[in-house]
Amino acid sequence: MAEAFERLQKIQAEDVADLCLGSVFLATGGGGDPYVNQLLTEAALRSHGPVALVAASALPDAAWVLPLGEVGAPTVSLEQLPVGDEPLVALARYESATGRRVTHLIPFEVGGANSVLPLVAAAARGLPVVDGDGMGRALPEAQMMTFAIAGVPPTPAVAVDYLGNTVTFDTANVDDYERQVRHLAIAMGGMIFTAEHGMVGAHARGCVVPDTLSFAVGLGRLLRQRRGPAKDLLPELEALFASSSYGILRHLYTGKVVDIDRRVQGGFDIGEATLAPLRGPGEPLTIAIRNEYLLASCNDRVLASVPDLIVVVDSETATPINAERLAYGQRVSVLGIGCPGHYRSEPALRVVGPRCFGFDCDYVPIEDLPAGPG
Amino acid sequence: MAEAFERLQKIQAEDVADLCLGSVFLATGGGGDPYVNQLLTEAALRSHGPVALVAASALPDAAWVLPLGEVGAPTVSLEQLPVGDEPLVALARYESATGRRVTHLIPFEVGGANSVLPLVAAAARGLPVVDGDGMGRALPEAQMMTFAIAGVPPTPAVAVDYLGNTVTFDTANVDDYERQVRHLAIAMGGMIFTAEHGMVGAHARGCVVPDTLSFAVGLGRLLRQRRGPAKDLLPELEALFASSSYGILRHLYTGKVVDIDRRVQGGFDIGEATLAPLRGPGEPLTIAIRNEYLLASCNDRVLASVPDLIVVVDSETATPINAERLAYGQRVSVLGIGCPGHYRSEPALRVVGPRCFGFDCDYVPIEDLPAGPG
Repeated sequence: MAEAFERLQKIQAEDVADLCLGSVFLATGGGGDPYVNQLLTEAALRSHGPVALVAASALPDAAWVLPLGEVGAPTVSLEQLPVGDEPLVALARYESATGRRVTHLIPFEVGGANSVLPLVAAAARGLPVVDGDGMGRALPEAQMMTFAIAGVPPTPAVAVDYLGNTVTFDTANVDDYERQVRHLAIAMGGMIFTAEHGMVGAHARGCVVPDTLSFAVGLGRLLRQRRGPAKDLLPELEALFASSSYGILRHLYTGKVVDIDRRVQGGFDIGEATLAPLRGPGEPLTIAIRNEYLLASCNDRVLASVPDLIVVVDSETATPINAERLAYGQRVSVLGIGCPGHYRSEPALRVVGPRCFGFDCDYVPIEDLPAGPG
Repeated sequence: MAEAFERLQKIQAEDVADLCLGSVFLATGGGGDPYVNQLLTEAALRSHGPVALVAASALPDAAWVLPLGEVGAPTVSLEQLPVGDEPLVALARYESATGRRVTHLIPFEVGGANSVLPLVAAAARGLPVVDGDGMGRALPEAQMMTFAIAGVPPTPAVAVDYLGNTVTFDTANVDDYERQVRHLAIAMGGMIFTAEHGMVGAHARGCVVPDTLSFAVGLGRLLRQRRGPAKDLLPELEALFASSSYGILRHLYTGKVVDIDRRVQGGFDIGEATLAPLRGPGEPLTIAIRNEYLLASCNDRVLASVPDLIVVVDSETATPINAERLAYGQRVSVLGIGCPGHYRSEPALRVVGPRCFGFDCDYVPIEDLPAGPG
């Protein structure tokens, strides 16, 4: 059985593949495909050395913590590759526009690409990265970050596109900011890089979802070392998540993808996947997608919903599958996981609950929902 | 008969109504409704005194000339009123973001609102305004300004929305910039204020369409003083335009609006108006709209096309009617006017010719086209 995960002091080039694998799992279908950014990050860490990880609780009051990552439709990133210096350009432009010296970087979310993008800039600049993020998973919009929920202003913010154009925002309200940055992403081909929600260490300590980078590395290592049928790995995954702030992990469904409808709309990947049992009759499972897997239901019976995590893995290898990679005929297992406590408060559920995504149901914690049909 | 128009040394509060009336005429349906901005401008000039007008040819080499105005769908500005300080905020933010001291302001275009917006900031700051603009008419997109055609970079640029949020752009290519700023306008309710295409005096002298503010005041004065049936005013209008760089003015059609289709789409007012004879049978006239009146045709026979001016006036008063005010049942006269020479070159026609708006025809100067059915 897996022991509790280890809190890391640094991220080395050898950790990046595990970090990406674990992050894709936690990203619940979103966060962007990590492959190209994994290579860029490994190269940056080999060239500049490891990046120090700092626990959120150890941040000095006066630290200036800058979240940094990509915003847009993950599907686009499969075809529109990064130049590679976007995180560095965003950081440099943020500092020149604000006159602030950034002391720590942090990811927006634990997402395939978004977990590692801050490492690229941190390695080149010799900056530490906070061991944590603003979601403990991936979610599609800026106001859903724990930073925003805790009242951190979104701007000054900087966006960089694949041509090296930069746009600077001074917008007080996070909903306005989200709309601006989303429209800009659409204007610039569907994906941009932003640096936003900068905050002092004292503020960050209270709103960062802690330890998620270390946890993702531990999770990725388990998935890599014990690669094999998902059902065999379940006990170890349950133990690992029980040792973390996620708490519960539950098997919801195993079946094959019989329908997938996915389109880029309004700057997001929007769609729905339908799964059927591998053989014989049985209830289908439906998964609603908006960049991430947001709601899993059997005949209108909800099995798990946002902000709890819904993870789709390959049945035979337990490898997580991003929403933009989900395809007809794949044999998959669907897991439901409790979200970190940051998202279970009333104010948080007002911006990340199922109704925020247009679903006509309230959030019920996964541990209080019926188990799936198996 | 009207004599040639007078070149003014300054704009006073008493000139503003004529400037707005003449500008709506030259704006060919676009440029935004001037009413609220006329009041704001009159108040600013009464409070701060007249604004000096400087001929483009008199600009010092080292002057820093800043175009300033609103961008979006004119229909929106009928309902979403300005706070009033947007031009000043845009100017102040432009100077703080760039470190430059602006010496002269200039309108993007001779448009209902856009002709006077620079005056609001100029009056408050004691700056002169260039007697001219970047279009000699109104047109919907940034790359269509003579500044852009002459190679003036669009950025650094600043956008201000009705909430006082500011966004700063650093984008080399004007087509990218136009796409960014248009998407931002959509995100912020349909209308924003921008300061962009800043340039030195030496550059401005070569690309400003000269004398258009003075001309608009003279034209507005004529329309006000000789308010009456359009057909009675035609000889005087023809003489006034013959004395200017527009050259020709021609009556194309008189009839009633029997159909108007207009919607806000992609950040523009898009639509088509159909006119029929006032009485008896006869060919209908069709006018295509994209913020401005762009193409007038009778049964696929083009009578006038962009970049030449198509102006719709009330038949009984000769008052110009903006596209967002055009309504079923109105009795109107349609006039065609030659565009300033700036738009008749090959490079200019590549960005302002009929094909740039999706029409399947090349530009033919109005003087070479058949006259209308009368």
